[in-house]
Amino acid sequence: MSELGALAAQVHALLRELDATVAVAESLTGGLLCAALTETPGASRTMRGGLVVYATETKHLLAGVDPDLLAQRGPVDPRVAAALAEAARRRAGATFGVGVTGVAGPEPQDGKPVGLVYAACAGPGGTDVREYRLAGDRGAVRSAAVRACLELLRSTLGPPTV
Amino acid sequence: MSELGALAAQVHALLRELDATVAVAESLTGGLLCAALTETPGASRTMRGGLVVYATETKHLLAGVDPDLLAQRGPVDPRVAAALAEAARRRAGATFGVGVTGVAGPEPQDGKPVGLVYAACAGPGGTDVREYRLAGDRGAVRSAAVRACLELLRSTLGPPTV
Repeated sequence: MSELGALAAQVHALLRELDATVAVAESLTGGLLCAALTETPGASRTMRGGLVVYATETKHLLAGVDPDLLAQRGPVDPRVAAALAEAARRRAGATFGVGVTGVAGPEPQDGKPVGLVYAACAGPGGTDVREYRLAGDRGAVRSAAVRACLELLRSTLGPPTV
Repeated sequence: MSELGALAAQVHALLRELDATVAVAESLTGGLLCAALTETPGASRTMRGGLVVYATETKHLLAGVDPDLLAQRGPVDPRVAAALAEAARRRAGATFGVGVTGVAGPEPQDGKPVGLVYAACAGPGGTDVREYRLAGDRGAVRSAAVRACLELLRSTLGPPTV
């Protein structure tokens, strides 16, 4: 199992404790967050699925993010991350939704530097958004963003109750 | 670059030749097909995004697959693969859509054996569906299914025109 798959397995254990599920809407990670969450056998008990909203327009087409927000703020914005998390949760019928947007590189995007990432976790208690400045090349930023999302989700779910 | 990323780079070159785009709706591969198609820098020019329809219900919720078809045939079915490809194409506004469903294992699903995979490619000329019997453990089946999808897409797009 990959290192990210092992972290995802911890998340699945916490979700099972809560009888909860998760769904994802991911941009710069392009499917890697979903892939980590589906690596574990039996993941379909707690992982619903997700939206890979890679091209900016798909954030509206697939996740319903307000096109005015995208036009005014650009796709790399904390409010876009929150909207993605909430859309994933609602559209896939999950207890929790994770949204992530950022700049993987190799070039800056809309004036935002490589490594700037916003991740959000939406759940019954509301939506939490975090900002990250991740180091490394395109592959390293994508992997670190997946890790950040899984750690954010793990901290939201808390320790197991047994 | 990973081996699957290199194959995806060939697909992107063919898409650029045709001034075309692709979107994905993937089940057993759980995000790996999208991840391969977003590994290359500049992929957003030809890769729109995708739907990760992992839990059976999300094939209806996220991709609009007919719930009667899912109830009657189960999620591992050539018509489901075709419906996923067509939904990806239509919902993401792409020229081509790829859909894939199958049994990654470790256990058979709904009487279907581990390694049975259906992949479909939908485009302006119609929808092509293929059946595969893939060998190996869960990780090997998932990787081989991503490869099968990329090769199906590459053969649909044909050789570059220059």
